[in-house]
Amino acid sequence: MNNFQFKNPTKIIFGKGSIEKLANEIPEHAKVLLLYGGGSIKKNGIYDQVKMALSNTTVIEFGGIPANPEYEVLLEALEIIKTESISYLLAVGGGSVIDGTKFLSAAALYEGASPWNILSDNIRTEKGLPFGTVLTLPATGSEMNSGAVITRKETQEKLSMGGPGLFPEFSILDPQVIASIPERQLANGITDAFTHVLEQYMTYPAGGLLQDRFAESILQTLIEVAPKVIKDPTDYEATSNFMWSCTMALNGLIQQGVPGDWAIHMMGHELTALFGIDHARTLAVIAPSHYKYNFEAKKEKLAQYGERVWNITEGSTDDKAYAAIEKTVDFFHELGIATKLSEYTKDYEGTAEIISERFTSRGWLGVGEHKSLSPDQVEEIVKMAY
Amino acid sequence: MNNFQFKNPTKIIFGKGSIEKLANEIPEHAKVLLLYGGGSIKKNGIYDQVKMALSNTTVIEFGGIPANPEYEVLLEALEIIKTESISYLLAVGGGSVIDGTKFLSAAALYEGASPWNILSDNIRTEKGLPFGTVLTLPATGSEMNSGAVITRKETQEKLSMGGPGLFPEFSILDPQVIASIPERQLANGITDAFTHVLEQYMTYPAGGLLQDRFAESILQTLIEVAPKVIKDPTDYEATSNFMWSCTMALNGLIQQGVPGDWAIHMMGHELTALFGIDHARTLAVIAPSHYKYNFEAKKEKLAQYGERVWNITEGSTDDKAYAAIEKTVDFFHELGIATKLSEYTKDYEGTAEIISERFTSRGWLGVGEHKSLSPDQVEEIVKMAY
Repeated sequence: MNNFQFKNPTKIIFGKGSIEKLANEIPEHAKVLLLYGGGSIKKNGIYDQVKMALSNTTVIEFGGIPANPEYEVLLEALEIIKTESISYLLAVGGGSVIDGTKFLSAAALYEGASPWNILSDNIRTEKGLPFGTVLTLPATGSEMNSGAVITRKETQEKLSMGGPGLFPEFSILDPQVIASIPERQLANGITDAFTHVLEQYMTYPAGGLLQDRFAESILQTLIEVAPKVIKDPTDYEATSNFMWSCTMALNGLIQQGVPGDWAIHMMGHELTALFGIDHARTLAVIAPSHYKYNFEAKKEKLAQYGERVWNITEGSTDDKAYAAIEKTVDFFHELGIATKLSEYTKDYEGTAEIISERFTSRGWLGVGEHKSLSPDQVEEIVKMAY
Repeated sequence: MNNFQFKNPTKIIFGKGSIEKLANEIPEHAKVLLLYGGGSIKKNGIYDQVKMALSNTTVIEFGGIPANPEYEVLLEALEIIKTESISYLLAVGGGSVIDGTKFLSAAALYEGASPWNILSDNIRTEKGLPFGTVLTLPATGSEMNSGAVITRKETQEKLSMGGPGLFPEFSILDPQVIASIPERQLANGITDAFTHVLEQYMTYPAGGLLQDRFAESILQTLIEVAPKVIKDPTDYEATSNFMWSCTMALNGLIQQGVPGDWAIHMMGHELTALFGIDHARTLAVIAPSHYKYNFEAKKEKLAQYGERVWNITEGSTDDKAYAAIEKTVDFFHELGIATKLSEYTKDYEGTAEIISERFTSRGWLGVGEHKSLSPDQVEEIVKMAY
């Protein structure tokens, strides 16, 4: 097990009816900017619940944060934060709205030349404007971590940011919000959380015996509840476990002391930036190719995953490892998630080269748990995913 | 799954050589009271490492906090805190030293008539004097939770306290400290952590699918590493997983959204208060009787535990549940832990009645996950443990 430091101060308020507890969490006399996305919260009743809970608080609203939160849109919200002297941010949405709010939390206190530098120069945020979240779409884990991913449309870039100042002060998780989420988004959420776990687990045996079992626990639980959530998103046992699994998949816990990969996300982000494919679906496109290409390096963990998560008991290590990849692909397919780039776009030729060039142009920092994949290898993996 | 609120702000600094990071965590200009136990830290080098790391800090020392931290001894430390205007507490020890430090953290800021009231009146501490810990004995999880248990010798009482103000600000966990721990203490630590998990897990199916699997993960990991830790306490893979498992066993995570039992601890505490039996050993004495007595209520979870943790695949639910209890007893025995009260004392007659009377005299609040066990039933369980 590697050395690690772990601190996660976010307060989770989980369960039925928890949105009404919102007012207790926001400081008295705060001037709140309420941030949300495309407006679905006005249809499903969450907006009304939030407004009711904040009836004694000064609230200004900013809606319209798109999926893959866009820098240009966020700059408009940043202007409001400054002109209105906003003191507290409240994200009501999924990972995109929460990630966008994290950018604003950092940018509101950033003193550099341009807020884009936070992303382009990878500036770690030690202190941000305080914020909380009401989660409306389980998937990214952003409600209990300190990272964010922001997209810049004009340059087709999608970059990461983070720092200890960017944990939400609180996050409200009411699994009942899941009832109104479209099936496509549910499938995306399951796929996203599942792949988050894989990125932190599917590397090589590193002596993190407990971390491995926690990772497998989340995967097993997602596999168990996924069909139930899709079939009946009012099934509280299924949805509450789905929601908590998504949070636990990326709140820092399972990554402590063990190597992480994240190559799938790096390549996937480019597919979203280039083609606008849903984030989760890009992960399902890249993951199988990535695991097949790096089979020798990852086969021990792939076989362990096959045995413990998919109950594959027959065959050699290679057999189990290969079968585990197939099981994963089947799982995505059962969720209605296509796993080939050509199923999403006809313009896929040349994509591998573009992604490899982009990685190189940003300064090749290496990809994968050993930071050892070369530009040529990334190209090969993306081509295998066509 | 039940509604829950979860926040755990303790910063964990885990790994080889982490004690030297101590100075970064304590505020500049702090006046520190360094608290420790019987002095083993002076033999195993931990004291020297701590003093070295704090060479630029004002430190006053208070040693001699005994196992089952005693109120009378702690009052002496409290006097020093007040007369010396101590601003920060540093616990270097196991659960007893850390629990004692939590009491002091609360008592230092308590304004009531007597600090004993914190325990006797069950007063929740919202804000305590800040403190950190250097863990020298993995077992209780006190390094990452906000609870403590304090003993009062003159009245043979052992009572609990806690509150959100009693999380350590940081805890340093260096698995290398395990190398110098006597085998008896290692066996106690494993048994203590194992039973902590059981108390939060062995109730009834409550829809906490992920929580169940996390609990099972800790149990499986403790079973896997226990013989290795006992055989070679310098085995870093085994000891690091043992240490992290003990912390995760009682840092609040696995109890969220599910019922807890804690009857074994309630009865066990009385055995320590009455006979001075090691805390962990009292748990191993009570657990088998408790599970046999409450077999019907707990058999579904017992069978699940048998299947998933002990790989018991044959037989009915009752068969698996019973076999799981036997496996647990065997596990304790393999650690050298006796599971009958008569193996610890010849004066066991009448113990069941005394414990039942004590519970009643404090106001019967009920025992177990349904708070439904009566004084007579507690008596029966303790008698079964003779």
